[in-house]
Amino acid sequence: MCCVPDLNYMKIAILGGTGDIGEGFALNWAERHKIRIGSRKSEKAEGASDRYNDTLTLANQELKGEIRGFDNRTAAEGSDVIMLTVPHEHVSGVIDTVRPVLPMSKKEYFEYTPPAQGSAAEEIQAMLPDDLHVIAAYHTIASKRLCSLDPAFRCDVLVCGDDRQSKDLVIDLTNEVDCLRPLDAGPLAAARTIESLTPMLLNLAMLNRLKDPSIKIL
Amino acid sequence: MCCVPDLNYMKIAILGGTGDIGEGFALNWAERHKIRIGSRKSEKAEGASDRYNDTLTLANQELKGEIRGFDNRTAAEGSDVIMLTVPHEHVSGVIDTVRPVLPMSKKEYFEYTPPAQGSAAEEIQAMLPDDLHVIAAYHTIASKRLCSLDPAFRCDVLVCGDDRQSKDLVIDLTNEVDCLRPLDAGPLAAARTIESLTPMLLNLAMLNRLKDPSIKIL
Repeated sequence: MCCVPDLNYMKIAILGGTGDIGEGFALNWAERHKIRIGSRKSEKAEGASDRYNDTLTLANQELKGEIRGFDNRTAAEGSDVIMLTVPHEHVSGVIDTVRPVLPMSKKEYFEYTPPAQGSAAEEIQAMLPDDLHVIAAYHTIASKRLCSLDPAFRCDVLVCGDDRQSKDLVIDLTNEVDCLRPLDAGPLAAARTIESLTPMLLNLAMLNRLKDPSIKIL
Repeated sequence: MCCVPDLNYMKIAILGGTGDIGEGFALNWAERHKIRIGSRKSEKAEGASDRYNDTLTLANQELKGEIRGFDNRTAAEGSDVIMLTVPHEHVSGVIDTVRPVLPMSKKEYFEYTPPAQGSAAEEIQAMLPDDLHVIAAYHTIASKRLCSLDPAFRCDVLVCGDDRQSKDLVIDLTNEVDCLRPLDAGPLAAARTIESLTPMLLNLAMLNRLKDPSIKIL
């Protein structure tokens, strides 16, 4: 996630936002912000946006913002916050020259296979201009639960990054989602641990018959 | 943790067991097992054992097993399960030729600095005979809460290792502690992630003013 700080009513681009984790954040943030769903094809993003708006209408949410669909580039242009929710192997379609990131493989078990920079977040930061700050977060959220808008579901979000203002903005945005508690997890280098929690949770689900596991810090 | 399987009433050596995490497990397991606290000096282990027995008496625990103190080598001899709870920099005193393990450093933040083998658990396994199986667990437990014997405290234990029988034994032992739920976290290679949760929790505590944080999988 890359961000420009300090707007109450923000334009938030969710690139790859047609997947279920993008849907979850769109539904939660639409009340207060303009959501710009991005996809490789604008029609797919427009279709997803229509569905999300329908979901909000059905849930009787009073929609102050709006959810609209665009191709990824258009969605990102002029946005205050850009959220990357693409599958790890498809980041190349979103950031022009990127290699595959958030590196995870599966043979018998899911395994974290980080890039040379230490983590996907650090890899992406290395490819961006200096004034765009990557904040890594939302690796341990069960997207189905997030999408459910169920207030009984509560979990923690581990947020790491090197730019204080950008990190605070992500923490504020996370606080807007009722079921999430943001926790400052330190510098961007901490993404090495936090990214590896995703394959860990997938293994825990597989080996212990857990459904959509998330993490809570007691 | 290295173990020989399949005894209901076991001899459990807790090497470095004079620290607070060793205390927590001794108190919880003493009801059903013979606990052998190990320390570099037997007097220190004997003193700790006396204190633990006093704690159990004060807590009105019906003590079916016993807690006794020895030097590390004596404690380990003839034990069914050997638990390593030494500080990472002192493992060399316990396993003869070991270099510093469970690798963590701190400058501004706590950082996981794994050995060449990938994790401390894999490093220890490489130094042991083939019939001794390392199981990695208990990295995310707040020892103070464990020692409190407070039934309101509940957290999860991520258990990983390559030997099925040994892993099942650790899972069974963990189930005996009321406040802990064991979860199978996969092969010993998963220790890379699970060990890095310790510095992550320390950072979360420091940055978010959390006291004795543990992990729960929802």
